[in-house]
Amino acid sequence: MKRKTTKKTPDRYVIGLDLGGTNVMAVLVTTSGKVIDNLHFPTEAPKGPDYVIENMAQNTIKLVEKNGLKMKNIWRIGIGSPGPLDSKKGIIMGAVNLPGWKFVRLKEMMEKQLGTAVGVDNDANCAAYGEAWLGAARGKANVVGITLGTGVGGGIIIDHKLVRGANYNAAEIGHTSLNPDGRVCKCGAKGCFEQYASASAIAESARERIRKGTRSMMTEMVKGDLGKLTSKVVAEAMEQGDKAAKETWDEFIKYLAAGVANQINGLNPDVVVIAGGVINAGDLLFVPLKEAVRKQTFALTFAAAKIVPAKLGELAGALGAAGVVINEGDFYGM
Amino acid sequence: MKRKTTKKTPDRYVIGLDLGGTNVMAVLVTTSGKVIDNLHFPTEAPKGPDYVIENMAQNTIKLVEKNGLKMKNIWRIGIGSPGPLDSKKGIIMGAVNLPGWKFVRLKEMMEKQLGTAVGVDNDANCAAYGEAWLGAARGKANVVGITLGTGVGGGIIIDHKLVRGANYNAAEIGHTSLNPDGRVCKCGAKGCFEQYASASAIAESARERIRKGTRSMMTEMVKGDLGKLTSKVVAEAMEQGDKAAKETWDEFIKYLAAGVANQINGLNPDVVVIAGGVINAGDLLFVPLKEAVRKQTFALTFAAAKIVPAKLGELAGALGAAGVVINEGDFYGM
Repeated sequence: MKRKTTKKTPDRYVIGLDLGGTNVMAVLVTTSGKVIDNLHFPTEAPKGPDYVIENMAQNTIKLVEKNGLKMKNIWRIGIGSPGPLDSKKGIIMGAVNLPGWKFVRLKEMMEKQLGTAVGVDNDANCAAYGEAWLGAARGKANVVGITLGTGVGGGIIIDHKLVRGANYNAAEIGHTSLNPDGRVCKCGAKGCFEQYASASAIAESARERIRKGTRSMMTEMVKGDLGKLTSKVVAEAMEQGDKAAKETWDEFIKYLAAGVANQINGLNPDVVVIAGGVINAGDLLFVPLKEAVRKQTFALTFAAAKIVPAKLGELAGALGAAGVVINEGDFYGM
Repeated sequence: MKRKTTKKTPDRYVIGLDLGGTNVMAVLVTTSGKVIDNLHFPTEAPKGPDYVIENMAQNTIKLVEKNGLKMKNIWRIGIGSPGPLDSKKGIIMGAVNLPGWKFVRLKEMMEKQLGTAVGVDNDANCAAYGEAWLGAARGKANVVGITLGTGVGGGIIIDHKLVRGANYNAAEIGHTSLNPDGRVCKCGAKGCFEQYASASAIAESARERIRKGTRSMMTEMVKGDLGKLTSKVVAEAMEQGDKAAKETWDEFIKYLAAGVANQINGLNPDVVVIAGGVINAGDLLFVPLKEAVRKQTFALTFAAAKIVPAKLGELAGALGAAGVVINEGDFYGM
């Protein structure tokens, strides 16, 4: 009888890129998830897509060579990009923060520049995938990622696979409605999650209270310049007992909890990962959030769903972009 | 050179059962989706789980023999059941409308009775799966099913597979919140979808208007007995120009649209299937619904998502239960 030999697949090198409106993050990682190195550089978006893509290619080479490797050692490249985009074809249809990007063949252009297989996917989806692959939800099958920033980004992983949807626009969690009579969002819908529970929404809600004449230590904290009022200022003022800050924060928690609960009741995930600078508030955020989510969910679904802060910080998107091309290469025709 | 012979998998017989609080529906179907026969019988739930399961087994045999077959000709049996349940093990943890069902080993008990492999899954999930397998969303990869009845039931299919979640409680779409300050639901949460857009909610909303003194032809239509006021009465009165009925319907559409839009923005499905008696309202329902959903979604996701009435009626759950055990037997350890 012949003995079976289990041959371990050798680790290969992969590049992940996270294309943002301001900066691009690049990581060098192995197929088993070892993070070797990273670098970031300004997008210089106003220079248009040709320049940005050329610049991404040059910096990819720089990151590779800096680590004693050559491009021929790179197995695949994943790019997280704002959208909407066609992730099958790697075409960016448009992007609010990338002027001139209309039907840009990002995959094709990068492949031509570098001679390596490229896969492109939505940046928020990649960030969630990164946390599921190597971060706060490592190894979990069903994961919802929610990033609280200027808006609210989302990504969904089910049975270990990224949910892309019928035309690659899934997981617009920030634009699920928490009130069909609510605030009008820039997307045109009413009551969008991100109108109540983004980092910008917290700051704006505090500003509104102050503008209406509510006295608050926040006014002094920003030396009267309400433009400088951030979610961090709100959290700090609340810790010092400021009433307006507390009201603002409570309202934020209520809506965030409703949005998170909707994902838990809808998808019964193992983990909900919350990302964005606001998570630095720690227990001030997570303790009341969990309690409010508990009230809006079933006991069993609540018990299943850990609600945790993201772990990968600004690397999540680039790592996730690498992760999806490693684990879901079939989808990209690799 | 040898010629390849393509051997078609021969059709096999499968039974699907939909266990309801009042009736059980049973279907005999083939693996390729040919519906042969069905029968339904009263659940007689007050007699407890042992009786109900024995009765389901006997009626299964009856349906099989009525069609000139024997139980040994039956490949698999699928059961859609209320929950919560453990669909991996086929255990019903409990069910509001099935008194005495606490940790009932439905799969094991049915297998013992009939000697055939049994798989059990959530009834609303099965109904959605039925529509995706043989009904209004036939062959589509990404499907959301929403049933408007006493409550609002949901089922989600992604990449042709049923979404079950971390502990088999996914797709509680009726309990996603459309307003965290809204009506308190019997589940304890606030602003649940089913508090605004179930068939019961439509009727209750019309009754409230009348109780508050609003004059409406609906009062006469039910001869003053508001207990007889149904969503059908509301639709009929609206068609005849009744103002209170129109207001009730508009409110219903607004919330239903928000709930449907949340699924579209969240999952970017190919199809949303709406089920329940209310769909008989036809264009009165679907024309304003689509228009309202359009306003709450992105152009691309809206364009991808057909919003259609269910096709399988009261057979959806039983057909879906058969469908999942045919197509996802691995999950049930078959």
